[in-house]
Amino acid sequence: MTVPAQPTPHPLEAFVGTWSGTGQGSYPTIESFGYHEEITIAIVPGKPFLAYTQRTRAEDDGRPLHAESGYWRCSPAAAPGDPLRVELVLAHPTGIVEVLEGTGSTGDGPRVVELRSTTVAGSGTAKRVDATARRFEIGGDGDELRYTVAMAAVGQPLTHHLAATLRRVRA
Amino acid sequence: MTVPAQPTPHPLEAFVGTWSGTGQGSYPTIESFGYHEEITIAIVPGKPFLAYTQRTRAEDDGRPLHAESGYWRCSPAAAPGDPLRVELVLAHPTGIVEVLEGTGSTGDGPRVVELRSTTVAGSGTAKRVDATARRFEIGGDGDELRYTVAMAAVGQPLTHHLAATLRRVRA
Repeated sequence: MTVPAQPTPHPLEAFVGTWSGTGQGSYPTIESFGYHEEITIAIVPGKPFLAYTQRTRAEDDGRPLHAESGYWRCSPAAAPGDPLRVELVLAHPTGIVEVLEGTGSTGDGPRVVELRSTTVAGSGTAKRVDATARRFEIGGDGDELRYTVAMAAVGQPLTHHLAATLRRVRA
Repeated sequence: MTVPAQPTPHPLEAFVGTWSGTGQGSYPTIESFGYHEEITIAIVPGKPFLAYTQRTRAEDDGRPLHAESGYWRCSPAAAPGDPLRVELVLAHPTGIVEVLEGTGSTGDGPRVVELRSTTVAGSGTAKRVDATARRFEIGGDGDELRYTVAMAAVGQPLTHHLAATLRRVRA
C-alpha cells in the first residue's frame, strides 16, 4: 500500500499550507448559506501523500458546520508536460466516504486539480450522495486557493454546491 | 446530513483522549512488524461526532508507517441497556476509504466497540482490501485502550492483522 516517493518540491507543493476564507453554499433542496472555512494541506515528512483537513463555520453565528479529513495522493506525470494523476480520499462526519480521481496541472501554467468521485459510500444513518466533483485552483500570487464542489444527491443530478476563495495564512 | 445532538458526557466519552503505545502487525503475506502509535479521539464542540486521527511509526527506526483519519458517529441506544449503534468512517493515505458499523457498550460494564466494514473502496492505484473488522476496548482504570484489526485483502480471508495497547497521554 505504498505510492512512489515524491521528488522535492512535492508536485502539489503549490497547494500546501493553511488557508482561510469564505464560501457560499447552495443546492436546489436547501437555502443558500455563507460559511467561513479553514483548510490545511500538509506534507507528512517521509511520505509521498499530503494530509488534508477542513472545517467550516456558519457566517452568521460561527457555529461549526461541516468538516472533512483525508489525504491527497499523486502519481508522477507519464511524460513531461502530461498532467499529474491525482487522487483524494475523504471521510466526512456525516457518515460519508469518498474517493475522487482526476488530474493536476501544477507546472508553470495554471495550477489546477480537477477530480470526479469514483466511489461515494455512506453508513446506514448517512444521507445518500451519488457523486461529487471538485476543482481546486491556485490563483493570484500563489496565496489564493479557490475551489468548487458539485454534488449529485437526494435525487438531484450533479449540481453546483459550494464555491470558496481562501488566502494562505501559514506556509 | 446531521445526526442527533449527543448528551453530555458523550456516549463514547471513555474513548476520548490522546493515546500512545505499541502494537504488533502480522499478515500471511508479509513479515511481522512492531510499531509505535498515537491515536487521538477528540470531541468537536457543538457536534455529536468524534474526530479520529492515528499515526504509526516503525519500532526499529521510527520511520513513519501508516496513518488514518476520520470520524466516529453513534446513535443513542434504542432502549436502556441496549448497545449503542456506532459507525466509523475512515480515509487512509493508501488510497482506501472505509465505513465500519457495529455496536458499543459504554455503560457500567466493559467499554467495547466492535465494528465490521460495510464499505471498503480504493482509488485506482490502491491495493485491494475486501473487508475489515475492528474491536476497541477500554481497559485497566480507564487509561488503557486496546484494539485489534482484522483484514481480508490480497486473496486472504478476514485474518488478524494488528493488535495494540495504548495508554492515555492526554485527556
